[in-house]
Amino acid sequence: MIDRRSMLAGAAALAATPAFAAKPKPLDPTFPKGFLWGAATAGHQVEGNNTNSDQWLLENVTPTITGAPSGDAVNSFEMWREDLDLAQSIGLNAYRFSLEWARIEPEPGMFSQAMLNHYKAIIDGCRVRGLAPVVTFNHYTTPRWFAAMGGWTHAQAPELFAKFCDRAMRHMGAGIAVAMTLNEPNLARLLPLVMPPQFLDGLRANLAAAARAANVQRFMVANTVPPEDVPAVTTGMIRGHRLARAAIKAIRPDLPVGFSFAMADDQAATKDSMRDAMRQKLYGDWLDVAREDDFVAIQNYERILWGPKGRLPAPEGGMRNFRGAEVYPPSLAGAVRYAHEATGKPVIITEHGVGTDDDTLRVRLIRESLPPLRQAMADGVPVLGYIHWSLMDNYEWGAGIGHGAFGLASVDPVTFARKAKPSAGVLGAIAKANSL
Amino acid sequence: MIDRRSMLAGAAALAATPAFAAKPKPLDPTFPKGFLWGAATAGHQVEGNNTNSDQWLLENVTPTITGAPSGDAVNSFEMWREDLDLAQSIGLNAYRFSLEWARIEPEPGMFSQAMLNHYKAIIDGCRVRGLAPVVTFNHYTTPRWFAAMGGWTHAQAPELFAKFCDRAMRHMGAGIAVAMTLNEPNLARLLPLVMPPQFLDGLRANLAAAARAANVQRFMVANTVPPEDVPAVTTGMIRGHRLARAAIKAIRPDLPVGFSFAMADDQAATKDSMRDAMRQKLYGDWLDVAREDDFVAIQNYERILWGPKGRLPAPEGGMRNFRGAEVYPPSLAGAVRYAHEATGKPVIITEHGVGTDDDTLRVRLIRESLPPLRQAMADGVPVLGYIHWSLMDNYEWGAGIGHGAFGLASVDPVTFARKAKPSAGVLGAIAKANSL
Repeated sequence: MIDRRSMLAGAAALAATPAFAAKPKPLDPTFPKGFLWGAATAGHQVEGNNTNSDQWLLENVTPTITGAPSGDAVNSFEMWREDLDLAQSIGLNAYRFSLEWARIEPEPGMFSQAMLNHYKAIIDGCRVRGLAPVVTFNHYTTPRWFAAMGGWTHAQAPELFAKFCDRAMRHMGAGIAVAMTLNEPNLARLLPLVMPPQFLDGLRANLAAAARAANVQRFMVANTVPPEDVPAVTTGMIRGHRLARAAIKAIRPDLPVGFSFAMADDQAATKDSMRDAMRQKLYGDWLDVAREDDFVAIQNYERILWGPKGRLPAPEGGMRNFRGAEVYPPSLAGAVRYAHEATGKPVIITEHGVGTDDDTLRVRLIRESLPPLRQAMADGVPVLGYIHWSLMDNYEWGAGIGHGAFGLASVDPVTFARKAKPSAGVLGAIAKANSL
Repeated sequence: MIDRRSMLAGAAALAATPAFAAKPKPLDPTFPKGFLWGAATAGHQVEGNNTNSDQWLLENVTPTITGAPSGDAVNSFEMWREDLDLAQSIGLNAYRFSLEWARIEPEPGMFSQAMLNHYKAIIDGCRVRGLAPVVTFNHYTTPRWFAAMGGWTHAQAPELFAKFCDRAMRHMGAGIAVAMTLNEPNLARLLPLVMPPQFLDGLRANLAAAARAANVQRFMVANTVPPEDVPAVTTGMIRGHRLARAAIKAIRPDLPVGFSFAMADDQAATKDSMRDAMRQKLYGDWLDVAREDDFVAIQNYERILWGPKGRLPAPEGGMRNFRGAEVYPPSLAGAVRYAHEATGKPVIITEHGVGTDDDTLRVRLIRESLPPLRQAMADGVPVLGYIHWSLMDNYEWGAGIGHGAFGLASVDPVTFARKAKPSAGVLGAIAKANSL
């Protein structure tokens, strides 16, 4: 188990490494003892039939912007033992997954003993297999009733989330290695940058259709937020994070708690680049929050080249994901360096990967992004773990299941049997050796 | 596996037994070879967190008449293996359970491969344990979307149900021993007799609240139907049963198919009793349907003493269930005799039991109801099986979980561990001996 004390000690030791040696030394390929090598999933993306969640409703009203519905996802609700077996067989020592609030609290104030038992069994199952459980208390999806009361804009939303975290902690907190409250709460800031303009109108229509179906004024979800609602949602989430962190710490003061950033490697492409202003806009308020946490978690998939007036196109050539976007392996280290610099906190990479039908790209990404990461660590950035997204192909928001998936393993669409891809072997070999 | 041919042969052999011997012979305590000894459950009452079902919504709106919500029920969705182990350990050779339509078809036309796999695994699990799977395709609860379109009053309801049965049969039909389409479709006729008058006004308010929550004109469920809707619901269900039977037979012509009656032992307490008229009212149209089926299934919990103008009170004394109603062991044989007489079909008892906190009552009921049943068989009534309600304590409609439960086993409210009661031993000994 990672506890807060060893985490802080590790950070201090790493921070003691001189940031700039007089002469470049050859890179030590070995990672610190206890470094977390993991793979990640998220409830709605793998469990399947998450019918009581806000997203399920969004996916199944007309009009919808969600693309193919999540449906069965990859049936992890029933096959979580197979998931853990897979993670163990790959050679990992950590597994990141999330609790489905919609299952644990299916109606306001109705807590499910069965579902608390369910997630505790996953934590226990991790421990039995030598996997450190990295638990996200809320990975985007909220209960349908929560969205129907206005989601994070409701005045009581932070308290409701904290109460949920309290109940979960009392039941299963003892086994958790790392706790994360929210997943990418800053995502809404990035959406207008990466989605086409018509996306936002479609989103508003989708939310309105869900509100009609639920017979409420406003149906608000956490991962797709129209810009006009971002300030209120952010205020609610920041307070929710703080209350949740306090609730978790009240049960386990030793447990490291944080949240995860959607964080690009933001590069200044010109002297008069707007990069620093954009960083403030995309991360600023949440960086303030992370400074209060035990670690800063980042989830990186790309770099952004900022010019004076906006994002510049990526250079031609190079790797591309299934959507045609650049895949730039050093972006991971770039984001890690910034996150530490901006917060002073040790870093955990809780997502990094590539959506592609070509697993050789994933192999290249792993092989080419980890040396720069190790170099950043050698340069003094304390990094506590690398958790790849994702353990297996799963439901990708807006893109359905299968095509362009992110998995270290594929999943049979009928039996849901998991099968490791070559990239799993590559990451597993590094994990087992704890060395590049 | 029971197939239709052996069932008919068995019925013929039993029918050849002289109905009235010149002199009463001592009762042969042995049951026919292949007699089914089982215990029953129903999806919504045991699985838990059936949030996408019509009943869940009824339970969680205001006002509600459903009493305590089903919540976790007894977590059989996750613990079905334990349920099968329990049935096997008791010594039974049959297990009756139901498919949850709301899980298999969570949205209209969206069939869940994972949930089809789930229920097929239960059927396979029965076979491995020597349990004949007696499968109810629909035990009251329907998907929320089905209720929101008016349930069985919708013109397309029968076709939708038949389509669901077709998909289920294609996936798991090969392993089923006995198929039942609907559970107690005549229940709505009995409700006004057994519920207080204010129940119906409460029901109407409950349905209206659910309609508001779902933003639809009418929310109609199958097990609690206001009298004004019973004719339309019955018409839809009869057509639904016939289409479903055809869909099942199209895949497995050999599979015995029927539905189950809520059937009292209706006794004429006076010469001018209205008993026969009431039988016609409570069962008449469905008896016509049963005559087309392979068997008639009955679910018996009581006798009704009919006077000239209505129901007469039960005699004082005797056994009482947790609600204070008479428990009359010979009622089982009485209902069985009538069901056979009225249809000419072999009989399966698919429910019989008692809600009580005193397991000695259950022991008495089993011990005192089976000899009259065996006598009815000796008198020429072909009976193919006795399936007790219920395998374990579970969610009882309108009464919550626990108090006054019907189980042969109790269930721990925290771990959901099942523990056989003495009554399970009594029924199991009879089952294993296949003899009284």
